Amino acid sequence: METTMQTIKVQTKSRPSTVYCGEGAIARAQEFLRGEDAFIVTDSNVNRLYGQAIRAWFPQAEVCVVPAGERHKNRTTLYKILDSMLKAQLHRTSVVAALGGGVIGDMAGFAASQYMRGTRLVQIPTTLLAQVDSSVGGKTAIDFRGVKNVLGAFYQPERVFCDPLFLDTLPKREIRCGAGEIVKTGVLDKGIWEKIKGSASGWASDGFLRSIVGDCVRFKARVVERDETESNGIRKCLNLGHTTGHALELLYGRRSHGEYVMIGIWFESILAEREGVCERAWAEEIRATIRQVLKRIPAFANAAEGLRYALLDKKNTGRGQISLILPKACGEYAEYKMAAEKYAEYLMLLEGGIR
Amino acid sequence: METTMQTIKVQTKSRPSTVYCGEGAIARAQEFLRGEDAFIVTDSNVNRLYGQAIRAWFPQAEVCVVPAGERHKNRTTLYKILDSMLKAQLHRTSVVAALGGGVIGDMAGFAASQYMRGTRLVQIPTTLLAQVDSSVGGKTAIDFRGVKNVLGAFYQPERVFCDPLFLDTLPKREIRCGAGEIVKTGVLDKGIWEKIKGSASGWASDGFLRSIVGDCVRFKARVVERDETESNGIRKCLNLGHTTGHALELLYGRRSHGEYVMIGIWFESILAEREGVCERAWAEEIRATIRQVLKRIPAFANAAEGLRYALLDKKNTGRGQISLILPKACGEYAEYKMAAEKYAEYLMLLEGGIR
Repeated sequence: METTMQTIKVQTKSRPSTVYCGEGAIARAQEFLRGEDAFIVTDSNVNRLYGQAIRAWFPQAEVCVVPAGERHKNRTTLYKILDSMLKAQLHRTSVVAALGGGVIGDMAGFAASQYMRGTRLVQIPTTLLAQVDSSVGGKTAIDFRGVKNVLGAFYQPERVFCDPLFLDTLPKREIRCGAGEIVKTGVLDKGIWEKIKGSASGWASDGFLRSIVGDCVRFKARVVERDETESNGIRKCLNLGHTTGHALELLYGRRSHGEYVMIGIWFESILAEREGVCERAWAEEIRATIRQVLKRIPAFANAAEGLRYALLDKKNTGRGQISLILPKACGEYAEYKMAAEKYAEYLMLLEGGIR
Repeated sequence: METTMQTIKVQTKSRPSTVYCGEGAIARAQEFLRGEDAFIVTDSNVNRLYGQAIRAWFPQAEVCVVPAGERHKNRTTLYKILDSMLKAQLHRTSVVAALGGGVIGDMAGFAASQYMRGTRLVQIPTTLLAQVDSSVGGKTAIDFRGVKNVLGAFYQPERVFCDPLFLDTLPKREIRCGAGEIVKTGVLDKGIWEKIKGSASGWASDGFLRSIVGDCVRFKARVVERDETESNGIRKCLNLGHTTGHALELLYGRRSHGEYVMIGIWFESILAEREGVCERAWAEEIRATIRQVLKRIPAFANAAEGLRYALLDKKNTGRGQISLILPKACGEYAEYKMAAEKYAEYLMLLEGGIR
């Protein structure tokens, strides 16, 4: 299959952004950073696999390597990056390049947003999750006191370079992680759902993944353009599966973000069905698709404790109430509020585990 | 003298802001915060003087008190505020009120900008400096590794309430501190300069200060509207006196920010005169006006070391070059670049001290 380069514009109020998806995206990044005062942030995993390549692609850039892993998405690492930026004497016109997965994108982006009140920023996502979702749209954040993404900024990158070359070295866990956001996007977009469904069991193949990245980016770009700072309700749709997903992730850890998102969608489809938000057939189709990637929905002992984290979610402004984005029909969603106690009762369904 | 309430709009791209200046501004703040989920950040000095009043004005609000003083404008205090916000279970729709001087405005503003990627924000400035300058325009920041304001965000407050009642309890040092920014604004604006000059030695009187706040806010509002994020060069003018002022402040500390700004303007007027940027008469008029407030320009041993800090200033993107905003004529300024070594030579003029 031949991949041609896709160029997707994201026209937000704060800063126009261009996303390049396809083979050769990394060459575009080289071109863009040539002659710039570039500062690359990456993690120890990416550095192990691509450290030499990075230094060959961007010979003039400073490279800042931070420890890999979600648990390092905290202020210690943030200040390590900021400290290196200061030592490298970066200025506002310098370009920070986040070269890594979602965690690197979040942290390097947040660092870029605040250093001298904002340097230039590009994203070079290396995981499926970051390519289909997190590198686009300008959300940056760190976790704090056990609350996910509670400190951060909306800060648009000038460019995003999604090169499929990085997908070749991804472990299965990382593919599953990206699959969470792809399924989410599919639930929200008919065209993408047809592709996911149509590919059946082979949907996580290389060719499929390469073609779906551009589709997901285009969908997200349209949402972000209409609601850059999640203030008019439109962008909220991207939180489908995330209220429960985040709560479980905080409570149990270990699995990847995307797996928790899938478990979240799986669980929230049951909730949508039982609350009469969607037809049973649609909820079952969602769950069947998730089970193509995630053979087993694990059991979560004391799942109802997730309520406490769900209540801290940024969407939940009303105290004692949970607000959820639920699937309504293929390509449609509904915002649904329910009493916290009722949500906790539903959470107990997760205590079983389902094959 | 009767003060009527002045209402000044600041129309920036990111968020419209309204500034109330005059007696009764605090009543407007009460009205605005009534029924809101309000979180007030203040410091130990303000709390000692106004703690009871604050709790009476805003009975439903949470109050977070942090240690007073410029040296606490760091990440430790920032995270203390963020931690309290989390404990108070604030959400995006909560309103953070920065009630204090420039340091509180900077830190509470930066905290508001990043908590859940941005809560609502109002400024209730209690010092002359904060009322005439720092509370308006959305700059927020903390110092880091000895560099002033190097981490921060542009984050506009929805409302600013400048009530003269707070000026009555200000110590002389705080009046001198505000005077720095008033003189700076005067150098940039003919109308304000006439007022400062006209008031001669009595210019720091109560009545004068009450009337000048609105003038300075109006001037700043027009600048900020044309260049919110200091990206097209217009907002740079507000840095007049600040490159040298900041450098000396970092090197020697002790004196207030505004005093250093005045010393910076005083010094940069000499530089402007000698480099042929302005006429001698204008430079002398500036210096004479500064000496109405600051009887003595102190001696700074090894002043040339200030170069190192001046080079880290956010305006200085070119390495080895210093960029300064210099007075050109009354109400006019020029951006002027010079070699770092030459600037360091000029700095040696400060080693003398002048009465």
